[in-house]
Amino acid sequence: MSLLQSQPIQTHTDARGHLYVVGQAELVRPFRMQRAFWITDVPEGMVRGEHANRSCTELVVAVKGSVRIWLTDGHEENEVVLASPDKGIYIPPMVWCRLTDFSADAVVLCLADEDYDRSTYINDYEAFLLEARAHS
Amino acid sequence: MSLLQSQPIQTHTDARGHLYVVGQAELVRPFRMQRAFWITDVPEGMVRGEHANRSCTELVVAVKGSVRIWLTDGHEENEVVLASPDKGIYIPPMVWCRLTDFSADAVVLCLADEDYDRSTYINDYEAFLLEARAHS
Repeated sequence: MSLLQSQPIQTHTDARGHLYVVGQAELVRPFRMQRAFWITDVPEGMVRGEHANRSCTELVVAVKGSVRIWLTDGHEENEVVLASPDKGIYIPPMVWCRLTDFSADAVVLCLADEDYDRSTYINDYEAFLLEARAHS
Repeated sequence: MSLLQSQPIQTHTDARGHLYVVGQAELVRPFRMQRAFWITDVPEGMVRGEHANRSCTELVVAVKGSVRIWLTDGHEENEVVLASPDKGIYIPPMVWCRLTDFSADAVVLCLADEDYDRSTYINDYEAFLLEARAHS
């Protein structure tokens, strides 16, 4: 089974450009939006993410440019390149994510179902693997 | 009194770029995020918005590039240029908005507290003025 759960994003295009929308009711993996964050200006070669979260779900979209996302739940792994504002992917709880290959113009939007809480993050990969494998 | 209610956006900058975050708890004007949409590729000279909403609040951020937003509640008016991913403005219910001067690279993110419902929008400016002035 793939870890990659996609969220198609409704697109409305006319002479005024594109509008992409995702509403609570359309979420493939229902969750409550509690926090939004966006990442910009990531220098070439830099890596972001490199953590898992015990309880928070995120929906990630490259609203501009592109980014490569590698995911693992400690058993299987998947990789995807997000390069369009009409496609999101989910990062469920207890899934490690690594974001690389940000294009120079990339803006990566994340919608999350929890406010930030440092105690819910696992930032050490070996610790993550132990915890992930213990619970499965 | 200014119609312009700003939302400062927390910024975390390091060698890996910028991360901007707004959580439910930090909203200057508290509301429940129910819908997110983003606008891209607006051709030069095009106008967006040109409506008011009877019940929905939006928080608008230019996460890339810039956009000019003109607001009126039927009595006073304000204009702002959003040109940074760390500044949002609110569009409260019964406020007409007009978005112009999108930069070619602009990505405008809106977080809204209602799913889309056509019946809550007022798309005719004269009708808006009548309704706005009747209620105030």
